[in-house]
Amino acid sequence: MARRRTIGEFDVIARLFAPLARGEPGAYGLTDDAAVLAMPAGRALVVTTDTVVAGVHFLADDPPEDVAWKALAVNLSDLAAMGAAARAYTLAAAFAGDLGWNWMRRFARGLARAQAAHRVALIGGDTVATPGPSTFTITALGAVAGGRALRRSGARPGDAVYVSGTIGDGALGLLARQGKLERLPARHRRALIRRYRRPLPRLALGARLIDAASAAIDVSDGLVADLGHVCETSGVGAVVEVARVPLSPAAAAAVRADNALAATALAGGDDYELAFTAPPSRAAGIARIARALRLPLTMIGRIEAVTGAADGPVRLLGPDGRTIRAPGIGGYRHAWRA
Amino acid sequence: MARRRTIGEFDVIARLFAPLARGEPGAYGLTDDAAVLAMPAGRALVVTTDTVVAGVHFLADDPPEDVAWKALAVNLSDLAAMGAAARAYTLAAAFAGDLGWNWMRRFARGLARAQAAHRVALIGGDTVATPGPSTFTITALGAVAGGRALRRSGARPGDAVYVSGTIGDGALGLLARQGKLERLPARHRRALIRRYRRPLPRLALGARLIDAASAAIDVSDGLVADLGHVCETSGVGAVVEVARVPLSPAAAAAVRADNALAATALAGGDDYELAFTAPPSRAAGIARIARALRLPLTMIGRIEAVTGAADGPVRLLGPDGRTIRAPGIGGYRHAWRA
Repeated sequence: MARRRTIGEFDVIARLFAPLARGEPGAYGLTDDAAVLAMPAGRALVVTTDTVVAGVHFLADDPPEDVAWKALAVNLSDLAAMGAAARAYTLAAAFAGDLGWNWMRRFARGLARAQAAHRVALIGGDTVATPGPSTFTITALGAVAGGRALRRSGARPGDAVYVSGTIGDGALGLLARQGKLERLPARHRRALIRRYRRPLPRLALGARLIDAASAAIDVSDGLVADLGHVCETSGVGAVVEVARVPLSPAAAAAVRADNALAATALAGGDDYELAFTAPPSRAAGIARIARALRLPLTMIGRIEAVTGAADGPVRLLGPDGRTIRAPGIGGYRHAWRA
Repeated sequence: MARRRTIGEFDVIARLFAPLARGEPGAYGLTDDAAVLAMPAGRALVVTTDTVVAGVHFLADDPPEDVAWKALAVNLSDLAAMGAAARAYTLAAAFAGDLGWNWMRRFARGLARAQAAHRVALIGGDTVATPGPSTFTITALGAVAGGRALRRSGARPGDAVYVSGTIGDGALGLLARQGKLERLPARHRRALIRRYRRPLPRLALGARLIDAASAAIDVSDGLVADLGHVCETSGVGAVVEVARVPLSPAAAAAVRADNALAATALAGGDDYELAFTAPPSRAAGIARIARALRLPLTMIGRIEAVTGAADGPVRLLGPDGRTIRAPGIGGYRHAWRA
């Protein structure tokens, strides 16, 4: 038989994506117009959407498994920031015209791994060919007990500011990926790149923080920018002691080698840790959550009344207790010509 | 003050998209990580996702209001095909780098009109800059009484096949838009182009068909292809009498002028009418629905046991009762190099 010259969208759906929908009967094997999900009584639906574009959010030669993992993980991270349990997702895959079957197969394999790790199922989507860069949009669906979602808006003066895990690995991983950290030992570069490519959404943490945190966000734009979002939504300011911000061994080594990378760690995005605030009375409870999850939860600062600082609502304190000027630390922003 | 040189994503979200979220408190003004929607007890969630790409699904010089209207309408059409009530939607907007504020503003205006017409609210999304063609992905959320969604899989031999409204206007509207129907009177061209750009999702019809139809689908790929999906999912075949397929005055004029356009009407997509099947006992009920909605519901054929026809599961009968050979009438399919 002659080799087929083209891959049709129905092949992609039936052979690569339908197997990812097996866990959810309401996905109807991706053969109907929409999925139907029974929602447990008393729980509210939580919905988030994120897009990744080749050349913007990932590099065209990134392993397809990692592109898929991250596309799903960044959405689940938003559910985690709301304290939601993840349930299902849809995928709109606009594959570039020159991607072959092997790339798509590996992409689907990465999705399979990510959804198994986080116990969600694909329930629908769209598969199209695009003349532009591959663009993947995922909408993740989760659930919280009615009215109890974690919000950005609950931070109050006097609250402590925490972050989970370590900060800066995502942004430093991107630099390593771009060949800009060649002096760093290879094992550190590998660790950073892995964190950049395979972020771990903190779903278990978010669910436990519902009873403990006053506000939460996931660190996607960068710690300073994301804490700024919490401050703006809550109408408060924040002080962060830079020396308390937890770094991984790899990130610490990078900063030791080039101190300017400290700003990258604080301002760069892609960590997908949770930053959250809690009244001081919750400190013991938060320490218990950290032990139960074996996940560091580090107090890095406190919430204060708005200071009106010109640099924005987040003030960074150096080891000497003085405010650090940090222009342009506001995080990545998409922009268009006016 | 100097004119700003760039438009930031937060400007786009705050000034253009947040106003579209005012109707839904759980959207939190698009300032949080995700939206939280209370779901009415006893109803199942219905979820669908569709993507449109500039140069593929719409033309770069189409009016932005129409691009937005259609992007939402095609998703609501999928909800209609399930018999769901529409509730809310997310938008992932990857705007091309050279789109200006005016284009985005007009796009948001089109969304505002479409969501007001169909009573849904924007609840979240993502706004990114893309080096490629503008790409918009919408995920629409609706609800049906638990377990009662319309499906593609319920068609049975002996059922009648119906379509709503008129068929072929979408595909002929695209031809008119491309300047290929210049001999047609201008009023007909305008009517066809309007149907192509501003499809009307049949939500009210879908909701009423839950008690009457055995299977349903929306006509997006083309009548023959979409009926084929119903047949494949139901394990049946269908016979369609071509002369019964309802045409608008504009489409009828186009077919009279060039008989080859009859195939375009049957095979082309973008009608966003509903095609559905129902047992003969439901004929009176369906006529009542048509009167109540002032929407033609036309019987165009019947379901039969699978015939194993080489052309696919849908057999077209000409006015003389003979089967029409219609190669390549299977609808648009996205494809990639193998």
